[in-house]
Amino acid sequence: MSLENVLSRIDADLPEAVERLTALLRIPSISTDPAFKPACAEAADWLVAELRGLGFDASARPTPGHPMVVARAKGPGRHILFYGHYDVQPVDPLTLWDRDPFDPEVQDTARGKVIRGRGASDDKGQLMTFIEACRAWKAEHGVLPGNLTIFLEGEEESGSPSLVPFMEENAEELRAELALICDTGLFADRQPAITTMLRGLLGDEVTITGPNKDLHSGAYGGAAINPIRVLARIIAGLHDDTGRITLPGFYDDVDELPEAVRAQWQGLAFDHAAFLGEVGLNTPAGEAGRTPLEMLWSRPTCEVNGIWGGYTGDGFKTVLPGKAHAKISFRLVSRQDPLKIREAFRAYVRAQLPPDCSAEFEGHGAAPSSTMSIADPAFDAARGALSEEWGMPAAFIGCGGSIPIAGFFKTVLGMDAMLIGFGKDSDQIHSPNEKYDLESFHKGIRSWARVLARITG
Amino acid sequence: MSLENVLSRIDADLPEAVERLTALLRIPSISTDPAFKPACAEAADWLVAELRGLGFDASARPTPGHPMVVARAKGPGRHILFYGHYDVQPVDPLTLWDRDPFDPEVQDTARGKVIRGRGASDDKGQLMTFIEACRAWKAEHGVLPGNLTIFLEGEEESGSPSLVPFMEENAEELRAELALICDTGLFADRQPAITTMLRGLLGDEVTITGPNKDLHSGAYGGAAINPIRVLARIIAGLHDDTGRITLPGFYDDVDELPEAVRAQWQGLAFDHAAFLGEVGLNTPAGEAGRTPLEMLWSRPTCEVNGIWGGYTGDGFKTVLPGKAHAKISFRLVSRQDPLKIREAFRAYVRAQLPPDCSAEFEGHGAAPSSTMSIADPAFDAARGALSEEWGMPAAFIGCGGSIPIAGFFKTVLGMDAMLIGFGKDSDQIHSPNEKYDLESFHKGIRSWARVLARITG
Repeated sequence: MSLENVLSRIDADLPEAVERLTALLRIPSISTDPAFKPACAEAADWLVAELRGLGFDASARPTPGHPMVVARAKGPGRHILFYGHYDVQPVDPLTLWDRDPFDPEVQDTARGKVIRGRGASDDKGQLMTFIEACRAWKAEHGVLPGNLTIFLEGEEESGSPSLVPFMEENAEELRAELALICDTGLFADRQPAITTMLRGLLGDEVTITGPNKDLHSGAYGGAAINPIRVLARIIAGLHDDTGRITLPGFYDDVDELPEAVRAQWQGLAFDHAAFLGEVGLNTPAGEAGRTPLEMLWSRPTCEVNGIWGGYTGDGFKTVLPGKAHAKISFRLVSRQDPLKIREAFRAYVRAQLPPDCSAEFEGHGAAPSSTMSIADPAFDAARGALSEEWGMPAAFIGCGGSIPIAGFFKTVLGMDAMLIGFGKDSDQIHSPNEKYDLESFHKGIRSWARVLARITG
Repeated sequence: MSLENVLSRIDADLPEAVERLTALLRIPSISTDPAFKPACAEAADWLVAELRGLGFDASARPTPGHPMVVARAKGPGRHILFYGHYDVQPVDPLTLWDRDPFDPEVQDTARGKVIRGRGASDDKGQLMTFIEACRAWKAEHGVLPGNLTIFLEGEEESGSPSLVPFMEENAEELRAELALICDTGLFADRQPAITTMLRGLLGDEVTITGPNKDLHSGAYGGAAINPIRVLARIIAGLHDDTGRITLPGFYDDVDELPEAVRAQWQGLAFDHAAFLGEVGLNTPAGEAGRTPLEMLWSRPTCEVNGIWGGYTGDGFKTVLPGKAHAKISFRLVSRQDPLKIREAFRAYVRAQLPPDCSAEFEGHGAAPSSTMSIADPAFDAARGALSEEWGMPAAFIGCGGSIPIAGFFKTVLGMDAMLIGFGKDSDQIHSPNEKYDLESFHKGIRSWARVLARITG
């Protein structure tokens, strides 16, 4: 059977596949830092060369930022687009890395072999699973698996400024029947998963002003309002004692989970003690009466992502500051409208201001949640393929974070997306000592071969 | 009458006195910055030369930090010690200064002539009022006014690390019958005042730890506790709705104001609207039912002097931080014990911690409040002298800040202190564009001549 031959070839070819990934990981394609612009171009060119070698009609396409890689292979069957990103996060603080982040190596650990280096998991290792699956397929069959476009971005870690304009300008070329996105993870580090719910995000920055300058806390303390105190009270008031967010109308557009989804989630063996234990915690801290998975996937949140005001250096300064600041974000679900939530937040803050205080706001991003339609038969096909590869049933799961590309494929190109990935919670993406399990890489390649066999066959 | 001659000479000599102050202000004696160590030594030497010129037996005495200036003139009458400090605050942010902070000049302003420059008010201008009074006295009488020690510190703006050890080592030499301290202000910018109540200070820094590292707010938000939220709740809970501090036992050792003091304060024409208006505020923000002067002088406070946690740079980062920090201070009054308040604060914080959170503390200074005994007849004498000079009755006032030297004179040398100064709230001490009114300087010199005539005569 030909799929078996492809899988055997993947197994035999694994050392070379790791070598190729290692070569890509050596290129420091940090998109947010202008110093690494040449490295981003180099990574794009490296990928173009690889894809041409496999028979794709591939090119690096200029944008105002870093290039997009677009590779086309016409063939029979449904037109499928695969998305990944070749740029990586910055590496600071470098002192917390055990080795040079751009000198990757395979390491033996207590939990098995890992590929260590910046981008190993997010997203170079993940995107290479798909390319290596194509390579093995081509080697066995002499042709690529179906009717494919590969679309690789170089600005995902820096806000994707060129993405939507590029998609709009090249809509005809990029529009396929289904998008595959490889930038997510397994469920609980072990069970294959297709992510079908993503939370939205609303970010806002608030500055509270009291006195018109910093004051001496001895000379004015007691009579002058302290804006840090005001800000603390505002933040403390955002949640009630049951962990619910207090903004009026906040839950109006939050739907309860459909019974089928709830039942499926209840069947998932989510070890929240292990999930929290990994980061030094024990107790789920969200709304009372909700399961940990609901807290993470289907319930909205309010987080303070940053706060500052007054003297923050070494020692002590008896300052009564003029201003206090916080960066606050809301993870959104269901039909919550980011702009409506922003207005509710700002109205709440204004209503809490004591005399003499004012508030200024700066918006930072607003994206609604998205729920994938799983009506496309590819979802059931992929679920079957993943279940076979991993030996346990693939789950339809949620994701607490936001992956805006899924929404853009829908709104700009009218295309549904299926999110399949092999990352683990322990991968330390965006942090020092990022890794990708060799198992994720190996079984990820095999997974794509199985998925492609079913959905493009 | 000889005092009249001294006063006339002070008037005639004012331009030269301003020149001398200007020369001292040109020396950038910033004590906290090691780069200015030579400048501190230069300021001490400059003062020694001036004092020797007046007939004092003066020297700059080495310490592990900056030198102490000690000058002795034996004479008849009570032994009086005068204290001031020749070091100044740093000048950042330099961009907010209208001119070089160490290129002082006399400027005409809408509110009269001012001497502009770092240290003009705090404390070089103030200490020079006393030296210039001695100069005029000597010129008229041929001898210095009585039995004097002048003691000038060079580390007051950097925590006075050498002060107590130096006082202990030189106790016999420094112990006088009364100390005069010139580092305070007029009442409400116009009425002469003797400061008889100083608030104490307890500083503490708290770090709340939740997760053992910074997390992604999408991946963990909702299930992981956010230490900024915890810290905000702790800070918000420190005051009730009437502005009272909620720590158990906090007010146990706070005395109500003696009726005589309350009556005197009620007679003071304190324009709290102008005081707050100067810094952009209108509404006294302290405890309900207290007058603004009580809020500033006789009631304890709790301020947040600094807060930080998470991402505080430009833009936005969806981090759920592992730690949050605040610097918190309490101004203390009456018999409040700083160490007891520290324990109450820490116990309160610990009691507020939700599961999985811990708190660490770092102490930053602990000094009780002090109330001067006004039994010494010098107080009434000085009050009379000041009232004559300024044409309105001198007030016994409080001070919201802490001036630890007053307490040290009592505890180390057993010496009462009388705090007389001529600074104004508008002097911008510790801030850009510091100034000292020419009126403060001129009438300050005349005030000391009158005070010395009464208390050393």
